[in-house]
Amino acid sequence: MHSTMFAMPLTIARILRHGSTIHGSSTVGTWNGDGFDRLTYAEVGERAARLAHALRTRLGVDVGTRPQDRQGVVGTFMWNNARHLELCLAVPAMGAVAHPVNLRMTDAQIAYTVRHSGDEVLVVDAVLIDVLAPVLPLLPSTLRHIVVAGPGDRGPLAGFAGEVHDYEELIADSPSDYPWEEELDEHTAAVICYTSGTTGHPKGIVYSHRSIYLHCLQGAAPNRYDLTLRETAFPIGPMFHVNGWGIPHAAFATGADLLLTDRHSKPASLARIIEAGRPGVAAAVPTVWTGLLDELDARPRDTSSLRRGLVGGSACPPGLIAAYRERHGVELLHAWGMAETSSLVTTALPPRGVDAEQEWAHRVSQGQFPVSVRFRVVGPDGAVVPNDGVSTGELQLRGPCVTAAYHGGVDAPPHRPAEHFTADGWLRTGDIGNVSPDGFLTLTDRAKDVIKSGGEFISSVALENALTEHPAVVEAAVVAVSDDHWGERPLAAVSLRAGSRVDFEDLRDFLRLHLASWMVPERWAVVGRVPKTSVGKHDKRRIRDEYARGLLDVVHLGGRPGGGAAAGQAGPAGG
Amino acid sequence: MHSTMFAMPLTIARILRHGSTIHGSSTVGTWNGDGFDRLTYAEVGERAARLAHALRTRLGVDVGTRPQDRQGVVGTFMWNNARHLELCLAVPAMGAVAHPVNLRMTDAQIAYTVRHSGDEVLVVDAVLIDVLAPVLPLLPSTLRHIVVAGPGDRGPLAGFAGEVHDYEELIADSPSDYPWEEELDEHTAAVICYTSGTTGHPKGIVYSHRSIYLHCLQGAAPNRYDLTLRETAFPIGPMFHVNGWGIPHAAFATGADLLLTDRHSKPASLARIIEAGRPGVAAAVPTVWTGLLDELDARPRDTSSLRRGLVGGSACPPGLIAAYRERHGVELLHAWGMAETSSLVTTALPPRGVDAEQEWAHRVSQGQFPVSVRFRVVGPDGAVVPNDGVSTGELQLRGPCVTAAYHGGVDAPPHRPAEHFTADGWLRTGDIGNVSPDGFLTLTDRAKDVIKSGGEFISSVALENALTEHPAVVEAAVVAVSDDHWGERPLAAVSLRAGSRVDFEDLRDFLRLHLASWMVPERWAVVGRVPKTSVGKHDKRRIRDEYARGLLDVVHLGGRPGGGAAAGQAGPAGG
Repeated sequence: MHSTMFAMPLTIARILRHGSTIHGSSTVGTWNGDGFDRLTYAEVGERAARLAHALRTRLGVDVGTRPQDRQGVVGTFMWNNARHLELCLAVPAMGAVAHPVNLRMTDAQIAYTVRHSGDEVLVVDAVLIDVLAPVLPLLPSTLRHIVVAGPGDRGPLAGFAGEVHDYEELIADSPSDYPWEEELDEHTAAVICYTSGTTGHPKGIVYSHRSIYLHCLQGAAPNRYDLTLRETAFPIGPMFHVNGWGIPHAAFATGADLLLTDRHSKPASLARIIEAGRPGVAAAVPTVWTGLLDELDARPRDTSSLRRGLVGGSACPPGLIAAYRERHGVELLHAWGMAETSSLVTTALPPRGVDAEQEWAHRVSQGQFPVSVRFRVVGPDGAVVPNDGVSTGELQLRGPCVTAAYHGGVDAPPHRPAEHFTADGWLRTGDIGNVSPDGFLTLTDRAKDVIKSGGEFISSVALENALTEHPAVVEAAVVAVSDDHWGERPLAAVSLRAGSRVDFEDLRDFLRLHLASWMVPERWAVVGRVPKTSVGKHDKRRIRDEYARGLLDVVHLGGRPGGGAAAGQAGPAGG
Repeated sequence: MHSTMFAMPLTIARILRHGSTIHGSSTVGTWNGDGFDRLTYAEVGERAARLAHALRTRLGVDVGTRPQDRQGVVGTFMWNNARHLELCLAVPAMGAVAHPVNLRMTDAQIAYTVRHSGDEVLVVDAVLIDVLAPVLPLLPSTLRHIVVAGPGDRGPLAGFAGEVHDYEELIADSPSDYPWEEELDEHTAAVICYTSGTTGHPKGIVYSHRSIYLHCLQGAAPNRYDLTLRETAFPIGPMFHVNGWGIPHAAFATGADLLLTDRHSKPASLARIIEAGRPGVAAAVPTVWTGLLDELDARPRDTSSLRRGLVGGSACPPGLIAAYRERHGVELLHAWGMAETSSLVTTALPPRGVDAEQEWAHRVSQGQFPVSVRFRVVGPDGAVVPNDGVSTGELQLRGPCVTAAYHGGVDAPPHRPAEHFTADGWLRTGDIGNVSPDGFLTLTDRAKDVIKSGGEFISSVALENALTEHPAVVEAAVVAVSDDHWGERPLAAVSLRAGSRVDFEDLRDFLRLHLASWMVPERWAVVGRVPKTSVGKHDKRRIRDEYARGLLDVVHLGGRPGGGAAAGQAGPAGG
């Protein structure tokens, strides 16, 4: 039976129009190092309109209103600031596609993403020209325009073969209203973001108007950003990371004011921004919250406005949540999501009526699933395991805000590599964990690091955490190595405290106090220090490589998992 | 460009599945007069599954997954209780259509809606059999089954030609899980509700899965029901009024507990339910809040849990908002919406940073538009007027939760009468008002009552409110009458206090103190009392009819609007 409701689509144009009219007096404040440069949302709307006219008529950016239409792609190479905000709203609202380029990728990766997404225009903060300069020779000829935002030396752009424009000059003479595409097909592309794994090329995710809008509607909820027109939101994470976790859209939809860091993202700046801008809610990755905590502990500031901080992007140390609660009166709300899920999936607001221990267990979990995301946990044998809080497997997702494929590039169809998507249509998150009966997720490992041993998962992280509690161990990394009988078994590479001597058998016995005996490794090696990736994570790939090439001095304690047999002994770490 | 996101639909099956698993330990409490009969959402889910099996296999209800499919329609004739909840979730989630019948319509209207929507099954609360009995002879033969919920005398159903079933017996032997249609086309029909105007047949609105889901996602927001798994919600309004304003769906989506009145909707029962069930948020029409206020003032109870009450359905007297705030510490949040808009549109959460007077002005307005509803105000000349808080016109809407037509009945297409829908695709709300620059709506009149005079609107309500401030006036009703020069002019029918004498010229001069002189009526009549409709509203149609038929003794003060000329004098009302 046909419903009688309007088939009106969910579009970014609607968010922009609503925010710049109904919430026209709300403001975005961009930190300039001493204070805020403020624009009202009405001014953002007018500047977005001028920009859209300029992109359309002066730079010839194509627009479309259906998924099958050709749409121009406009890249941004910018910090979080009001210009970046107006770009990320205007470009999709006019029917083109925004591509916020991740500044933190390598030069080759940046060039790859500009080529792969087909950027014709790249808007660059003047202060980032130096960062862009080494990428210039790698950029494709399809990039026709570079638009420079703000004052600064254009010299390094001299070698660019296309045209260079000044942002303010470009938009100066255009009309301040624009016929935004409020009724385009909501499945049309709106924004492309790229996520860089440790291997292969960055992978592109093409968010639709629908996915961004639905994520935005949920974002206002009281177990998420909790936004109304009475609030000020401070998205600390960059807008090139999954649209600033959707906070800018949610602010425009609700009328909450926005604070943006521009290039001032060091802890001391964040503390000043919070004191001066008085946000009620902020969002950042754990390392940012850790840096801010150290800053606030050392140089206290008035952060009394801040009642909630979303923390996600990687697992949050429970001590960090406790420290903010106890020392600064801030509720850090643990959240989990990824670029592939439009950012936020789970948030860890505990249920009521539980004791303090349970309350804490819920708080430090990854959080509870929302209505709009379907999930399942798939065990090592490929079967879905129950949500009993114990059974472990890979987390797989479906949903209107979840990606079903990766972007194939200009004129190429999307692709669904089996490593990331199941044949029956689920996203493989690559995360290993369990879900409680009340839908709270606990992640224990990355799929590529977990050890699949005799039909069970062994968490490398659980072993590493237990090992580092031993007084002789400085660092530990556990990797899977192949085993004729069990398929895989864990290998523990430990770095020992200078001057300490310890038997591997002692370590094995120590682990048995904390973990099931079948989880405890037989294979052990001592390393000077655990090798790290460029972002400071354990480089487990290198350990696996060195093991495979026979470069590690491995002791095998022998016996079947759970029993103890031969013994080995290790000296202290060198240096 | 194609997005890479899953095209997963928004369905009631998703809400039911999520609520009955993730939030399986949340509860719905149905008041039994002494306490709550509680079911967990997991139990609701199991009972819903049993019901779906029984409807499908025992009663042969058709299901569909696309708008073009034939779907069976299941009517409900029930109070707010857990069985009604499981019906309203199960029927759409299985791919059929739920039709919560409005118990408060006339017998003929009830029979009309059952026939028009094509109900094959009608589920009746046993305690409502006596209310249904006089409707039985009017019911169509297409109604094949009556299912009786709860114990009670089935005698009055003896004359029903179809089969009569007992609800619990019907569902007893079915499996407790069901393959809910989680991935049906979201534009498929889910629920039909009928709205009864003062003229003509009731009009059917067919909500889609999409419209209910989107309304539900917004419902959790902090400027609406503000729901999380830590909350208890109390939808006082009946579920046959626009799905209980969407609160049951929002509770299942968020895990908030639910309280339901069953048949106990008198103020004393509401007070006991609040004291015993400790809801944080409730929702009802102004008359219910007024009755509850009198009850709480007379017999105080512990209502300390209640922090917010949504009030809508008709304009809320400001004094009611003040009384709850001052005497009971409850924030009454003024809201506006209609059956045609899936219930909630605007809510009146004031902005921050305004003075007390402005705060109050925002609170007593109808509230601020949300992102998902497009609106325009159309003046008497058909042109859109600016949102300046002054310019007045008819409110017109579009949006994914707004109806674009009325249901045409079984096998008939939807219809769009020009009285209710514009040619360019907007719903005419029939409400007259203005919108401030920050999107706050103030309604002043119904379109059918407003006076269109010389290209301007004159509010009948404004004239009536001003007239009743005169000490000699008991009641006043103002209607439009045709005028050769101005198109329409107001006619004021007043009922005077016994023993008082007043000149119409005095009343005219009194009005000029309050309103622009061109708004002041020339035509005056005294009536014994203002005629009322069956629900106690001024029966303006009768006054217009009596005027047209020359039955009113009308004095014409003469002169042009704004000037004063001839005089008239009236005696007091008889008796």
